[in-house]
Amino acid sequence: MTGKDGIPMDEISQKSLELHYALRGKIEVVSRRHVESREDLSLLYTPGVAQPCREIQADYNKSFDLTRRSNLVAVITDGSAVLGLGDIGPAAGMPVMEGKCALFKEFGGVDAFPICVDTQDVDKLVDTIALISKSFGGINLEDIAAPRCFEVERRLKERCDIPVFHDDQHGTAIVVAAALLNAIKVTGKEMGKVKIVINGAGAAGIAIGKLLIRMGFGNVVMCDINGVICAGDPGLNPGQEEISHISNLAHEHGTLADALRGADAFIGVSRPGLVTAEMVRTMRCGIVFPMANPVPEIMPEEARRGGAAVIGTGRSDFPNQINNVLVFPGIFKGALMVRATDITEGMKVRAARALAALIPEEQLSPDYIIPSVLDKSVADAVAKAVADEAREQGIARIG
Amino acid sequence: MTGKDGIPMDEISQKSLELHYALRGKIEVVSRRHVESREDLSLLYTPGVAQPCREIQADYNKSFDLTRRSNLVAVITDGSAVLGLGDIGPAAGMPVMEGKCALFKEFGGVDAFPICVDTQDVDKLVDTIALISKSFGGINLEDIAAPRCFEVERRLKERCDIPVFHDDQHGTAIVVAAALLNAIKVTGKEMGKVKIVINGAGAAGIAIGKLLIRMGFGNVVMCDINGVICAGDPGLNPGQEEISHISNLAHEHGTLADALRGADAFIGVSRPGLVTAEMVRTMRCGIVFPMANPVPEIMPEEARRGGAAVIGTGRSDFPNQINNVLVFPGIFKGALMVRATDITEGMKVRAARALAALIPEEQLSPDYIIPSVLDKSVADAVAKAVADEAREQGIARIG
Repeated sequence: MTGKDGIPMDEISQKSLELHYALRGKIEVVSRRHVESREDLSLLYTPGVAQPCREIQADYNKSFDLTRRSNLVAVITDGSAVLGLGDIGPAAGMPVMEGKCALFKEFGGVDAFPICVDTQDVDKLVDTIALISKSFGGINLEDIAAPRCFEVERRLKERCDIPVFHDDQHGTAIVVAAALLNAIKVTGKEMGKVKIVINGAGAAGIAIGKLLIRMGFGNVVMCDINGVICAGDPGLNPGQEEISHISNLAHEHGTLADALRGADAFIGVSRPGLVTAEMVRTMRCGIVFPMANPVPEIMPEEARRGGAAVIGTGRSDFPNQINNVLVFPGIFKGALMVRATDITEGMKVRAARALAALIPEEQLSPDYIIPSVLDKSVADAVAKAVADEAREQGIARIG
Repeated sequence: MTGKDGIPMDEISQKSLELHYALRGKIEVVSRRHVESREDLSLLYTPGVAQPCREIQADYNKSFDLTRRSNLVAVITDGSAVLGLGDIGPAAGMPVMEGKCALFKEFGGVDAFPICVDTQDVDKLVDTIALISKSFGGINLEDIAAPRCFEVERRLKERCDIPVFHDDQHGTAIVVAAALLNAIKVTGKEMGKVKIVINGAGAAGIAIGKLLIRMGFGNVVMCDINGVICAGDPGLNPGQEEISHISNLAHEHGTLADALRGADAFIGVSRPGLVTAEMVRTMRCGIVFPMANPVPEIMPEEARRGGAAVIGTGRSDFPNQINNVLVFPGIFKGALMVRATDITEGMKVRAARALAALIPEEQLSPDYIIPSVLDKSVADAVAKAVADEAREQGIARIG
C-alpha cells in the first residue's frame, strides 16, 4: 500500500515512530521570559505576581490580558474515536492530540495544549472539561465518538464562557463547504439547485449536512450504512433525527447508489471502496469528495473514469486536499483575537466563504478548488472572517 | 515599605503588572518540530501518527516515551490559598501558577502546565485531577487550602500512577530541612538533641514538622494561634491530630513564647511580627527562620538584636533565602528521569540532604547555609538524589 507522497505506508509509520521516539513529545512548554536575576524572580513570581492576581480577582476579564488565556486552546479528547483507530483510550490518543497542538501553533500561532480525559461518561467528561475551562481561552474537542460528542459539545457550550468547538464536526464541515463553494463555480452549478449526497451520518456527516443546508445548498440527502435517511425512519440517533427534518426534502428512499443517480455532489465520510465508477457515471457532472482516510470511498482515478468533474480527498498525494488544518487554526485565532464567547453558525459560514474566496475566480480549476494545506496565510484570512462576524453578532468581548 | 532588591513594593507591583500586560502569559506552548512540508504533516500528524498511537495502545508505558509525558508536570490549584492572597479563585490564581511553570522550565528544564480547577469540593477536585492525569508525567498541587489539601493529595496518590506532590507542604519542608541541617552544623548543635519550635500548624508547618521528625531532629514542638499543640488537645484537625502524637513528646503546654524558652530553632510559617527580640534572647544560640512572606515573623535585624546565631527568611533581600524554588524543579526532574511512580518520604529526605550538601562544610557560615535561588545547578543535584533513592526503593520504572 502506498501512503502520502508515494512513500510506502509502512515506511511512513516507521519514520513517524522513530521521530516520536526522538522528539519525546511534539510540543513543549517554555517560559516567555528567562529568569536570571532576583528581580526577574520578584516580577514573574513573588512578591510582584500578587498584583496581576489582584487585578483578575477584581475584574475576571483581565485573566485574558494577564495570563496565557489570551492565546490558549485546550485540545481535549476522551480517546474514544481517534483517527481511524477507534476507541484506543486517553493515553494512546495523545500523539494525535499533540500533533493537533503542533499544527495550531505552526499554522495559527495559537498555543494549544492536549488533555486526554480518562472517562467516557458524558456527565464526568462535561464536568471535568467545564471545571478546567477557566485555564484556557477556547476548547477544541477532538476525536470523541458520536452520538456522545453532540451532547458533550452542547452542554459545554452552555456551561463555558469561552468558545467550544468540536473540530471533527465543524472543522470538517467548514472545509468541505469551502471546497464545495468553489466546485460549483468550476462546474457552473447553481447553489440552490444542487443535490448533494453525504454518505456517513456520524458526527462529521451530520455537521457537514447542517452547515451546507444553512448556507443554502439545495437538496442535501444523508445516507448511512442502511441507505438514504428519511424523516421518521426508525433507529435514528438524536443527531440523525434532527437533520432528517431539514434534509432529503423529497423523502427519497433507497440505497446510496439510488441517491447518487442524478446527484451533483458526493461527500463521503464513511469507508473505503463504497463508491464505484459506475455510480459516479449516474451523477450529473459529479463533484466527488470521497474523504475516508487514508483509503477513500473511491480512488480518484476511478472517479475520473466514472466522469467526475471535480475530485477532492483527504489525502496529500492527490489535488484538492480537503483537510481541516485549513480551518481550526484560523477559527480559534479569530475567536481569540476578539475574545468571542462562542463559535456560532454564522462564524462557521463566514469562515467557509473566506476560505473559498482565497482562490481568485480566474485561478479556480477542477484541480484547484481549495488552498494548499501548507499555505500558512490561510489562518489569517479565516481568523479575520471569524473575528469580523463575531463583532457583527455582538459576541466579541473586545474590538 | 521596601520589597526585594530595595525597590519599593509598589514599584515591584507596578513593574510586575506591566510585565504581565506585555507578556500576555508567562508560558507558551510551542511545537518541537516545524511543519513545512507534506512529509512533516504526514509524520507528525496523519497518517504516520497512527503508529505511535498503536504502540501506546499495546503498551501503556510507551506513553512516557512517545509523548510529552516524558517531561511534563501539571501545576494544579483550586485557587483557595494563593500566596498571601487567600481564596481568590481559579482565574485569579493563574498568574502564580504560570510563574511556577516558568520556574520549573527555567530551573529544572521540566515542562510544566498550569491548570486551575473551578471547584473546592474535594470529591470533584480529586475526580477532575485524576481524570486528566494520564496527560502528564507528574502532578504538582499548589496553593490548595488546608486541611482540604491533605485529603486531596492522599486520594490522588492512591488513584494516580504518577508522582503527586503538594509543593506548599513538601517543597517547603525539604528546603527548610536542608537549611536546618546546615544551620545546626554552623552552630555545632546535635541533630538528635535540638528543640525546634514550628509556629503555624497549617499545610506547610505540619509537613515541615513531619519531615524533621522523620529525619531525626530531636524534639519538634508545633504551635498554632492558640499556642503549643499537645496530643489530646480539643479542636485539632486531622493533620494536627496526626502530628500531635509524634511531636512535643514532653507534653509541654503554653504560649509560643513559652515554647521558645530554651529552644534551639524557630521556624515560622505564620504571620508577621509574632516574634520579638526578647523571645529570641530566651533561645539557646537560636536558629531563626521567620518565613512569613513578604513580612516575616521577626525582621532579621531584630532577630540579630535578640542574639540569633543563624537567620533565614523567604526573602531575597537578606542572606539565606529559604525558597522552594530550590526544590520542586529538581524533585520532579529526578522523578521524571526514572519515571518514579511516587514521591516518597525517603526521596524527600534524600533531596533535603543533597540540597544541604551542595555547600561544602568549609564554606558554611551563618550567612551561607543554603544555595542561591539563582543557582541553576541545584536542580540537577536534587534530581540525582531523588532518582537514586527511587531506584533503591524499587519505584523507578526505568533505570
